[in-house]
Amino acid sequence: MTDEDDRYARGRALFHELNPKAVEGLEEALGDVSPDLVRLAAELPFADIFSRSGLDKRTRQLIILASLATRGDAATQLSVHIRIALNLGLTPAEIAEAFLQLAPYSGFPTSINATLALKQVLED
Amino acid sequence: MTDEDDRYARGRALFHELNPKAVEGLEEALGDVSPDLVRLAAELPFADIFSRSGLDKRTRQLIILASLATRGDAATQLSVHIRIALNLGLTPAEIAEAFLQLAPYSGFPTSINATLALKQVLED
Amino acid sequence: MTDEDDRYARGRALFHELNPKAVEGLEEALGDVSPDLVRLAAELPFADIFSRSGLDKRTRQLIILASLATRGDAATQLSVHIRIALNLGLTPAEIAEAFLQLAPYSGFPTSINATLALKQVLED
Amino acid sequence: MTDEDDRYARGRALFHELNPKAVEGLEEALGDVSPDLVRLAAELPFADIFSRSGLDKRTRQLIILASLATRGDAATQLSVHIRIALNLGLTPAEIAEAFLQLAPYSGFPTSINATLALKQVLED
Amino acid sequence: MTDEDDRYARGRALFHELNPKAVEGLEEALGDVSPDLVRLAAELPFADIFSRSGLDKRTRQLIILASLATRGDAATQLSVHIRIALNLGLTPAEIAEAFLQLAPYSGFPTSINATLALKQVLED
Amino acid sequence: MTDEDDRYARGRALFHELNPKAVEGLEEALGDVSPDLVRLAAELPFADIFSRSGLDKRTRQLIILASLATRGDAATQLSVHIRIALNLGLTPAEIAEAFLQLAPYSGFPTSINATLALKQVLED
Repeated sequence: MTDEDDRYARGRALFHELNPKAVEGLEEALGDVSPDLVRLAAELPFADIFSRSGLDKRTRQLIILASLATRGDAATQLSVHIRIALNLGLTPAEIAEAFLQLAPYSGFPTSINATLALKQVLED
Repeated sequence: MTDEDDRYARGRALFHELNPKAVEGLEEALGDVSPDLVRLAAELPFADIFSRSGLDKRTRQLIILASLATRGDAATQLSVHIRIALNLGLTPAEIAEAFLQLAPYSGFPTSINATLALKQVLED
Repeated sequence: MTDEDDRYARGRALFHELNPKAVEGLEEALGDVSPDLVRLAAELPFADIFSRSGLDKRTRQLIILASLATRGDAATQLSVHIRIALNLGLTPAEIAEAFLQLAPYSGFPTSINATLALKQVLED
Repeated sequence: MTDEDDRYARGRALFHELNPKAVEGLEEALGDVSPDLVRLAAELPFADIFSRSGLDKRTRQLIILASLATRGDAATQLSVHIRIALNLGLTPAEIAEAFLQLAPYSGFPTSINATLALKQVLED
Repeated sequence: MTDEDDRYARGRALFHELNPKAVEGLEEALGDVSPDLVRLAAELPFADIFSRSGLDKRTRQLIILASLATRGDAATQLSVHIRIALNLGLTPAEIAEAFLQLAPYSGFPTSINATLALKQVLED
Repeated sequence: MTDEDDRYARGRALFHELNPKAVEGLEEALGDVSPDLVRLAAELPFADIFSRSGLDKRTRQLIILASLATRGDAATQLSVHIRIALNLGLTPAEIAEAFLQLAPYSGFPTSINATLALKQVLED
């Protein structure tokens, strides 16, 4: 097995551990039309970066949620990463608090829409 | 003293404790042209939100940095909040790690420009 | 009653006067998962800012519509504020004209999507 | 016929040639609420710019797709322009490759969401 | 003179009346490298849209300021349009109030940076 | 040499071939504060994606320019990639034409600011 194969395997395994439905859904949706996008989306975010030391995983996940919520145009990814946050042991109250913290910096629509996404994930 | 006076006093005191030059600079720059903007910028972010329990202050600050870096159009505020992060005890390595974590979600320009801002703050 | 209670009461009353369904919908959706977000979303925008003198309310509302349409990621809030604009006496033609004015500065997708939202509100 | 009439006629004819359903859908949706927006949306993009020499039409269309995907808030327009790209002879593989090329610069959510839109267009 | 010549002449005359330095600066900066961009930047915004009836000019200008400030990446254009706002008779206090109105919807960095731009224009 | 070492070596070599000053400047600026960001910024964009077949390099570069210009908050990266475009044989007129093509989709500030960046690169 080459390092590259290993890098993909490590990235996919971590992504799968954090949110199995998300990685399988991505593979099913885009595995034929853009297979290398599916592969790279497991490698850079998970094998290269999320697995690093230097910050604990819950803190990393709140940083990702803050970035996706601020972008505002990544509803699918925001829901995927809210589920990962819950799987990592962050509580709904902590996630809601992180979204509230965004209001002064990105405006109330950012906080409200992200919190609506959290509510939707909790109800599913 | 009314509750409103108290709210402003609490917000300004916390902002001043975290970054005295920033609050004084903002007051000097905009105190005449938009005094209520200066007041509200101490109240909502600091008296209402940053002072809350529910998340520790370092985590809140990384969330703010992630949001400002992702916006990409808030260079002044990003530098102000990098200094606050350092004042709260976050290390340069932790802040750089937070900015690296943004690359898959907001692109390399976001990570690179935020890390250049960190470097600039460290050199000042 | 403290000033803070009064501030919330004033903000909520103004929000309710402008769009009763929106404030009730927000309270129902997020009142349990993030009650302070619901409170702050009545205070800053309505008690602190929209109620100010200095600009008349219709002009303020067109400024809000321009900002929400330019963000592009706040469809729910844009519809809420189109209804407020209509409740303040702005005509559909004036709102459509404001959205047309955005095309050179934010691109045709901004104008088209905002005008589609206006059309949808008018049909409801 | 004035030059202005001619400009609109040329713009609409080109838009119609590239995507007849899109121009007709836009006229039906917004022809009453904002007729001049419908007219200008045929003139500037098509009569003034897309019809220019200096870059071939397929290259222009990939530039438009890159811009709409990067904005992230123009799902309807992105789908309209994916269909135009296909009508101009770009292959699904070329369009997917263009969206993959955006990942380092605008983040994986941009590439994934644009490729999901491509997949949806191909299935329709 | 064709209608097209007239359209450009009308657009440039209006732009020049509102901010002579801006139109001349744009022509000097980009007249050689992209002459048709300079022409179109007089036509669509000024001949086609700003000159329309349906909203008065001061209201239009506040809408433009709200959009440019919300984009956040158009510092040059924001300053140009703050000068136009002043030339149309809007007071510094009204412009500052418009920027304050953006804080709940686009965040404090938007309001602060736009108000700093206003302050800079007033000092020049 | 492992595959990973090779991946970095290939990415850096391609980045260096396209714009030697940019890669050296990035290494000098951020090599100490965030060395892995520097490494990843050579790997994903250059070793993984830009080197792919499926689209020719000039087309890829115009897609990158469209994305960076549309983001609007990546002035340094836009200039770096304008130089790469010129090194790949794209003419100033073609690059200016690409930026003009963005006006209807992202607004005139996008086209104007990107063309000003092109002008600045040409003068250096």
